[in-house]
Amino acid sequence: MTAEKCVLVGQSGGPTAAINASLAGAIAAARSQGVRVTGMRYGIQGFLAGRTVDLDEKVPDARSLSLLKQTPASWLGSCRFKLPKATENEALYQDLFRRFEEVGASCVLYIGGNDSMDTIAKLGDYGQSVGSEIRFMGIPKTIDNDLVGTDHTPGYGSAARLVATSMAELALDADVYDLKSVTFVEIMGRDAGWLAASSALARPDLVLLPEVPLVEDVLMERLTQLLEQKNTVMVGVSEGVRTPDGTLYCELAAPGAGVDEFGHLATLSGTGRYLASVTKERLGCKTRAVELSTLQRCASQVVSRTDLDEAYMIGGTSARAALDGESVKMCALQRIADDPYEVRTKLIDVLSVANQVRHVPAEWISEDGMGVTEDFLRYVRPLVGDMPEQLPPLP
Amino acid sequence: MTAEKCVLVGQSGGPTAAINASLAGAIAAARSQGVRVTGMRYGIQGFLAGRTVDLDEKVPDARSLSLLKQTPASWLGSCRFKLPKATENEALYQDLFRRFEEVGASCVLYIGGNDSMDTIAKLGDYGQSVGSEIRFMGIPKTIDNDLVGTDHTPGYGSAARLVATSMAELALDADVYDLKSVTFVEIMGRDAGWLAASSALARPDLVLLPEVPLVEDVLMERLTQLLEQKNTVMVGVSEGVRTPDGTLYCELAAPGAGVDEFGHLATLSGTGRYLASVTKERLGCKTRAVELSTLQRCASQVVSRTDLDEAYMIGGTSARAALDGESVKMCALQRIADDPYEVRTKLIDVLSVANQVRHVPAEWISEDGMGVTEDFLRYVRPLVGDMPEQLPPLP
Repeated sequence: MTAEKCVLVGQSGGPTAAINASLAGAIAAARSQGVRVTGMRYGIQGFLAGRTVDLDEKVPDARSLSLLKQTPASWLGSCRFKLPKATENEALYQDLFRRFEEVGASCVLYIGGNDSMDTIAKLGDYGQSVGSEIRFMGIPKTIDNDLVGTDHTPGYGSAARLVATSMAELALDADVYDLKSVTFVEIMGRDAGWLAASSALARPDLVLLPEVPLVEDVLMERLTQLLEQKNTVMVGVSEGVRTPDGTLYCELAAPGAGVDEFGHLATLSGTGRYLASVTKERLGCKTRAVELSTLQRCASQVVSRTDLDEAYMIGGTSARAALDGESVKMCALQRIADDPYEVRTKLIDVLSVANQVRHVPAEWISEDGMGVTEDFLRYVRPLVGDMPEQLPPLP
Repeated sequence: MTAEKCVLVGQSGGPTAAINASLAGAIAAARSQGVRVTGMRYGIQGFLAGRTVDLDEKVPDARSLSLLKQTPASWLGSCRFKLPKATENEALYQDLFRRFEEVGASCVLYIGGNDSMDTIAKLGDYGQSVGSEIRFMGIPKTIDNDLVGTDHTPGYGSAARLVATSMAELALDADVYDLKSVTFVEIMGRDAGWLAASSALARPDLVLLPEVPLVEDVLMERLTQLLEQKNTVMVGVSEGVRTPDGTLYCELAAPGAGVDEFGHLATLSGTGRYLASVTKERLGCKTRAVELSTLQRCASQVVSRTDLDEAYMIGGTSARAALDGESVKMCALQRIADDPYEVRTKLIDVLSVANQVRHVPAEWISEDGMGVTEDFLRYVRPLVGDMPEQLPPLP
């Protein structure tokens, strides 16, 4: 009683503005080859509980595909499920592969970050060991832009657009009164500062990244200098910024926060609030902390068109590659040129991506460690698109 | 040495996405009558310090007017300056009127909320008492939508659009995992719940307004019921929500916050964080607090086109009315129809607006006090514009 063959697709990890665009691209590509598409509800975890979605029924036409492409967050539902090694729990793998057979999966596509690439690598490995013909393909997605082997990740450009344009708007807002103030804009990014760095498109005064340990005294000195020169100081700060001894500033803000099952701190917010409160106390000026919050990963109006289009393309390329027999690969982006911007897709070994973190390279961080270089701006600009045009501020 | 006659225009109070559209409208209207336009830098306070801007030089053409219209926050700079009564400080009024004469102001336009209407009323009153021919006109602006005598205020529609679309996006984001969660989205609005109410366009489960005292136990009971029926509970909560004894919830979150010179609490944030922490403790589910922050009043990409157009129109109408001899008036909006939406402007006495607060009327609040009625949605919908279209969530 084998089911008709299908492409099985799941979404994992945190949502993005573009993850559904990749899903839409995969559905369209499979459909164009006459192959059914089934979705995992809530990722591998929901799939293990028998929860699937018939995507030919739920996303039946061009109109619904087009709406799916522009719908933010993980439409299929997601999970944070760390697949154990097959040697640790073979029964789980047997269960999974039995379910793959039941739904008729010839290809399994998993849209996610480096944890998801680890899942794909493990499934591919186990499949090979038991002689399964199912192909496994990773589709990259993360606002953090921290996957190795790809120029950037789908989801990053839209999140970066939200960050950069919000920074520009908040700078205008902060500057309306004739007084000294420092505004800290807290930006997502646990370990890698790509998203915080994107705020530099709005030319804030400082950008603080997790890649560079932050000495409180040095920051205060720099802010003092800046406040001597101008009224309004803007700081983009990553939620993952640490002290030189490795303590997260947000832990200073909220001591004793829990860790999740990946060993990640469950919540990282509070860095901006902490720094604003220290600045107010030590420098005596007005301060404000703004958390851009989860809107960074689910905005639907402030998105990068380039990001959505690339996410859709990568979804399609991945589905076609899997149907053509490729397995244990991830579809990466290779940049051909900055301006006019041009990229192409390439398949890379998913093992080279799994469990790795790509940091903002040192050569793209300014010498004082509190900003980024013009090279970084050239890198990020085409991913974000044109900034909104405004009348220049009065002197 | 009287200067050539001009229209003098200032901005006051908190910024909005549309306040510069009103400025642009006023400039265009004055210019079309061949009258010079001068700006106050940082409102009345900056003007008293001699700070003016030649707007014919700084905003010289159609292109810069068009950019000004779409630039958020107060381009001229703003202030929070409570004009004392003339009987308390006549020297200040003499100084102001001397400066009005110096710049050649035949009309003074002041774009702001109810404090600014108070300023216009006092200036008009004093002007009359000394036989001045200067006309004073208030141009409404506030994201709070709490001015009496007008259907709504410029700035509200754009802020409401940011709130409603963010609520929709955050609901999608909150729903991606298969677990019980309550998300509190904290929305600006010190005394009036208009902005929090606008979140209802995204159909959250509860909307908590400052107009209705909130009993913690009643909220917990309601949340418990909701969590029995569904995974993801969304709550839009005004920063101004109070306990039945009149304590602001944000004061429970951050006891001892200061008050500003208007007697307003300097910062109201923390209501969402407080309620999320109580909910987590009492109901044991995952909770999240999101502050929409000052982005509500300075967004530039998520704006209501209707709002910007109306703000521009009101700026122009106000300038023309002042040039025609009207004084001590505010240009209000009168709604003709909801659908198709139609409004017209009318001049009302600025004294009827000054220092008053318009609350969300009881008949637009649902019986349980935790939501709004369909009548309110019909009211707010045309001000916000169409919500972004998305693929409906999976069951």
